[in-house]
Amino acid sequence: MLNFSVTILGSNSAIPTFKRFSTSQVVTHNEKTYLIDCGEGAQIQLRRFGFKVGKINHIFISHLHGDHIFGLPGLISTMALGGKKGELHIYSHSDLKGMMDPLLLFLNESDDFKVLYHPLNFRKKAIVYEDSRLVVESFPLKHRIPCCGFLFREKEHDLHLRADQMDYFKIPVRDRVALKGGANYRNTDGTIIPNGDLTLPANPIRSYAFCTDTVPRKQILPAITGVNLLYHEATFCDDLKDLALKTCHSTAKQAAELALEARAGRLIIGHFSSRYKNDNPLIEEARSIFPNTFVANDGERFEIEVEYILIHIFSPLTSYSSSKNSLLKLTR
Amino acid sequence: MLNFSVTILGSNSAIPTFKRFSTSQVVTHNEKTYLIDCGEGAQIQLRRFGFKVGKINHIFISHLHGDHIFGLPGLISTMALGGKKGELHIYSHSDLKGMMDPLLLFLNESDDFKVLYHPLNFRKKAIVYEDSRLVVESFPLKHRIPCCGFLFREKEHDLHLRADQMDYFKIPVRDRVALKGGANYRNTDGTIIPNGDLTLPANPIRSYAFCTDTVPRKQILPAITGVNLLYHEATFCDDLKDLALKTCHSTAKQAAELALEARAGRLIIGHFSSRYKNDNPLIEEARSIFPNTFVANDGERFEIEVEYILIHIFSPLTSYSSSKNSLLKLTR
Repeated sequence: MLNFSVTILGSNSAIPTFKRFSTSQVVTHNEKTYLIDCGEGAQIQLRRFGFKVGKINHIFISHLHGDHIFGLPGLISTMALGGKKGELHIYSHSDLKGMMDPLLLFLNESDDFKVLYHPLNFRKKAIVYEDSRLVVESFPLKHRIPCCGFLFREKEHDLHLRADQMDYFKIPVRDRVALKGGANYRNTDGTIIPNGDLTLPANPIRSYAFCTDTVPRKQILPAITGVNLLYHEATFCDDLKDLALKTCHSTAKQAAELALEARAGRLIIGHFSSRYKNDNPLIEEARSIFPNTFVANDGERFEIEVEYILIHIFSPLTSYSSSKNSLLKLTR
Repeated sequence: MLNFSVTILGSNSAIPTFKRFSTSQVVTHNEKTYLIDCGEGAQIQLRRFGFKVGKINHIFISHLHGDHIFGLPGLISTMALGGKKGELHIYSHSDLKGMMDPLLLFLNESDDFKVLYHPLNFRKKAIVYEDSRLVVESFPLKHRIPCCGFLFREKEHDLHLRADQMDYFKIPVRDRVALKGGANYRNTDGTIIPNGDLTLPANPIRSYAFCTDTVPRKQILPAITGVNLLYHEATFCDDLKDLALKTCHSTAKQAAELALEARAGRLIIGHFSSRYKNDNPLIEEARSIFPNTFVANDGERFEIEVEYILIHIFSPLTSYSSSKNSLLKLTR
């Protein structure tokens, strides 16, 4: 299965501390490294936790508050100093370029390294990035300024070929690619062999949703329902829900309720107000509603996993096989 | 004696690490807190090492390379979020305001907190800040872009009144202020008592000079000669002096030679290239020339001290006193 994980680089709200830097996360998928938000010191945390800054080619910025972007000038400078080649794509509000350009005049010196800014759509869900294995979608959140969440969703994987059947039917290698995509097979005697007899189900698709900063928002349920891992801000405990609403943030209870309604696999909460000297009240509040909740701590890595249910499927008897076992993997 | 110290917040060259953040230092004098340079994460280090960001009212920026300024947007934002009132004065190249303003639009929201930028003079030595006890002067360094060093120099202290003589001559409190400034005293019988018989020497004035980024520069000797503490960059060891010259930096040997020629009390070296996995070769090279050399490590605090030499001075006999002792403090 392709690697797919989230590493917390920074997890604090507005004011960073040595223990909790400002918001920034690394998503790795299929040996690629993506960055979400870039609070001050993100480049320090990247190196601290073993990532190569030069490998990042795509950065997704939720909104333009300083605690989500003030690490960008340093990160981009370090990329340039390190001799990074090619294009760095930044997906953000269109104002970001005007904020960064005065700080990055030196970049004109290099023709080999370009920073390209791509405006996000803050009105509706949109695909912002896509490769052969992964799609990243943005969806509107509700904060004091335009803000987007991001959904990292794997594309459908190939079906698994059954080695026993490949041998039995002597299926040439050249014909197997089509089978992985779901095609039936025409045997040398003209018999059609259904794809289901030749393949096992593909790996389940996995997904990760990132939601900060925002009030709790039911409108995002279509985007996040069924995600394996959900990061949702929880700036306050619920006794301060009025303050949360006023500042356009969420409480731990509200984040947990949303995770429950979205049938998320696991929930990570973070972006805690600096008034909380430890995270106990926040995690306890969230777990009372959604037990599978975890706290975002700098350096912590969350693998994006599905829960496996082993089911023996006895296929109907056919002329060429008496019975088969399939391993069906179900995503939550 | 007034407190006067330097604390290293960050000591690395271009690329910050978790162990060594980018260049930034705190100078405290007479309960005031000054900042020199402001590399990424300076606000994190300030809190980590027990400083209150809201107490900083004056920031001195040597030059506009990112590793010396990328901590400013975050620091200023945090000051504003923390409800800082009054004026923050930043002394820097005049381009800085244009670089910071797009990132700090929110500051318009507050009328109580203002950021005021003051341009430095990159052609000649100039006083940039002054209060009743301290003067800060800038002096030109030589780097790839305009760059200044800073000299923090105490003003002359008051003379110490001799309690025994105040009693002997029954000098009223109202007349004593003038004596502290060096005036003689006219006794009730009209006799003139020389100031030297009524006072002990003032505390010596102390000074700290900050020099980065720069080639070694003899032209700065008039500014830094006799400083009690000198910070001078030492990006490379001397085997890379050609690279140092090409990139407008200094070697550890060159920094030590300058400290020796300036008769500095102590030397701190820092801003090491990331090629040095430990600082041994740099400190050994510097100490072979200037033994009183120390390495800048994040969090380290250097008190600015003078060396005391106790000298008994037997003053000439007078009609009112047989002999006196004075404690003469000499600065190096």
